[in-house]
Amino acid sequence: MSEVQNKAQLAKNAALRIGRLNTEEKNQALLIMADALIRRTADIIEANAEDLRRGKELGTSASLLDRLALNESRIEGIAEGLRQIVELPDPIGDTLESIDRPNGLSIVKKRVPIGVIGIIYEARPNVTVDAAGLCLKTGNAVVLRGGSSALSSNRKMIEVLHEAMEGTALPKEALQLIEDPNRSSVDEMLKLNGLLDVIIPRGGSSLIQNVVMNATVPVIETGAGICHTYLDATAQPDMAAAISINAKVQRPSVCNSMETLLVHADYAKLHLTALAEEFRERNVELRGCQRTLSFAPWAALASSEDYATEYNDYILNIKIVDHLNEAIEHISNYGTKHSECIVTENEDHASRFLQEIDAAAVYHNASTRFTDGFEFGFGAEIGISTQKLHARGPMGLPALTSSKYVIIGSGQIRE
Amino acid sequence: MSEVQNKAQLAKNAALRIGRLNTEEKNQALLIMADALIRRTADIIEANAEDLRRGKELGTSASLLDRLALNESRIEGIAEGLRQIVELPDPIGDTLESIDRPNGLSIVKKRVPIGVIGIIYEARPNVTVDAAGLCLKTGNAVVLRGGSSALSSNRKMIEVLHEAMEGTALPKEALQLIEDPNRSSVDEMLKLNGLLDVIIPRGGSSLIQNVVMNATVPVIETGAGICHTYLDATAQPDMAAAISINAKVQRPSVCNSMETLLVHADYAKLHLTALAEEFRERNVELRGCQRTLSFAPWAALASSEDYATEYNDYILNIKIVDHLNEAIEHISNYGTKHSECIVTENEDHASRFLQEIDAAAVYHNASTRFTDGFEFGFGAEIGISTQKLHARGPMGLPALTSSKYVIIGSGQIRE
Repeated sequence: MSEVQNKAQLAKNAALRIGRLNTEEKNQALLIMADALIRRTADIIEANAEDLRRGKELGTSASLLDRLALNESRIEGIAEGLRQIVELPDPIGDTLESIDRPNGLSIVKKRVPIGVIGIIYEARPNVTVDAAGLCLKTGNAVVLRGGSSALSSNRKMIEVLHEAMEGTALPKEALQLIEDPNRSSVDEMLKLNGLLDVIIPRGGSSLIQNVVMNATVPVIETGAGICHTYLDATAQPDMAAAISINAKVQRPSVCNSMETLLVHADYAKLHLTALAEEFRERNVELRGCQRTLSFAPWAALASSEDYATEYNDYILNIKIVDHLNEAIEHISNYGTKHSECIVTENEDHASRFLQEIDAAAVYHNASTRFTDGFEFGFGAEIGISTQKLHARGPMGLPALTSSKYVIIGSGQIRE
Repeated sequence: MSEVQNKAQLAKNAALRIGRLNTEEKNQALLIMADALIRRTADIIEANAEDLRRGKELGTSASLLDRLALNESRIEGIAEGLRQIVELPDPIGDTLESIDRPNGLSIVKKRVPIGVIGIIYEARPNVTVDAAGLCLKTGNAVVLRGGSSALSSNRKMIEVLHEAMEGTALPKEALQLIEDPNRSSVDEMLKLNGLLDVIIPRGGSSLIQNVVMNATVPVIETGAGICHTYLDATAQPDMAAAISINAKVQRPSVCNSMETLLVHADYAKLHLTALAEEFRERNVELRGCQRTLSFAPWAALASSEDYATEYNDYILNIKIVDHLNEAIEHISNYGTKHSECIVTENEDHASRFLQEIDAAAVYHNASTRFTDGFEFGFGAEIGISTQKLHARGPMGLPALTSSKYVIIGSGQIRE
């Protein structure tokens, strides 16, 4: 039996036991796990140093090495993340619906764990603990498959968590890490119907596309974000500038940041040059449509490939449109159904945009950067779903649950 | 462009328009469509006769021909089904959650259509109208791919519905029928990411398995049901007999009927012979474990393959177990997570069974035959989900919806 199959089977066996635990038992264990991470900080940093050394040898970029790196304060942050998960309400056991039928049947729809959740992710070792905490809190077993570049760090953190779990009600078999660094271990996970109930990919678009196109296990698609901000003719200039600059530069590397600014021609005439200057001051490279170039001659000409690119960087496309419909159409063609914003003082335009744009989050007069579990008040999130089934948008704990109908009778049979 | 791609694209283009319609507009159209089916009954029966003739030539079994056949009263029933869908509350636009954030953002989670729904099904032409009605009522476009044996009937009914839609607000492009009878048209649908938002297979387990194993479009798995009834030591004999006979023989061909009866050894000693006699009187062929044979010597010996078979017929497995755990374990090994029942007077055993059995519907003292949209009070259903994501159990209209976060601000940006 392969490592993947073996560990998934252990996780499945443990799923029933963890599913039965009460909130208190799960929370106690998570707190003990958080303490263990702090206590073993030095060991974790040592294991992480191995990953960093190997990464440097392989010529890994500075930004990737930065994502990979753990230090005392980051480990403190990871442990704090677990403690915050403890504070969140436990959705398991909640009654979602109660139906009393005329024949006397009582039907109650209850929240239950999903079962075994597979997480496939890249180089950020914090995801290891974060995903484990969210899955265990919701009574799920979890099979983690992190990037091979973080393997030493992940292995050490899982070792620490397993040791901590030993004195607790949480069975350590419910937390599994796949250590096989070959791509084939990912491929194997994708086909583990019957052992894994769902796979959640977290990472760049090529990782996500590989999972979506090859998995036979159900997938929750997360992440890719080509987000737009549309400045309508009546947009207030100060607000429009603040929102579009925030959406682009507050943190360009994340999925809810803006990639393309759509500007109504009337707004452009009055304000686009000044706004383009502001982007230039913030070192944002501009790529514009032909008409944009007359307002910002230093911009490059945008190709349709540019409009279809998630830069996650200090690069912005600008396109001038003649009416709301053209903006909606552009977003329908190039958007990834993540987060889209209109800035306008025209209520009719706002409501048409909010209704007609097909995306997880649609904004009127606010930055797309708010699409986030913490910003929505959910606490930690396992990712941002850009698909339409099961969960859409930031996924808090309820997205990691399923439901079950519990029917109580007194001998009812069907006529 | 292939037929499949072309029609899916038309459906996608229409999805935005149908998504915007209000309840009244959709209901009016559905009523006109129901009337048209009645008015064109003779034409539909004529088209159906072609299917029946071809079916007979191909040596189709009598029971399949019966499923395929349409007559006046069945068409009346199909039209009545559409009228019942009109009576159901429209979930689109419902507010699922309202969050007011300290920064002044108002976040509202709204129900929206999924978009374009693909339905792949077999020989029952009633599914054509039924699925169309449910999808259109929820503002979705739908691409139907029925069995080739019902092609003439389906084509005629869609023609009738399209004509009826012409005077209504429902764009007829929102209702598409794939007419290519080759298997390749199914394969093509399964990979139409970007055009289809979800595929729902309805039919036998080989159809469903093909869809689950080959689709890259998200799937809602429906149907297969190896359902168990467990008669605990303290089960009331009259109730136990009534429930188990109902679960088996009231309609053996459907997914929520019982395939295996688990019997506690103490119960078996007192009551199994009488119960087995009752099944014999109802022409149910019995296959039992070794111990069962001493109570019902006319039963055949059950193999583990038998326990893994969905008979959908007058055949029943019987297995004697020594305690609740053994019953739970058997169900975990052989069940399909559909509907499972315990008959007992022991409340502790009931609550352990209801909690530990992992299925869409778990019953205490009632027949598994109740797992059904109508019986749960949802009205029509698009199927019974046996998966854990998005929807589980009977799927009414809300299962055909997604959600969207609508965020209203006044210039908020993220710090």
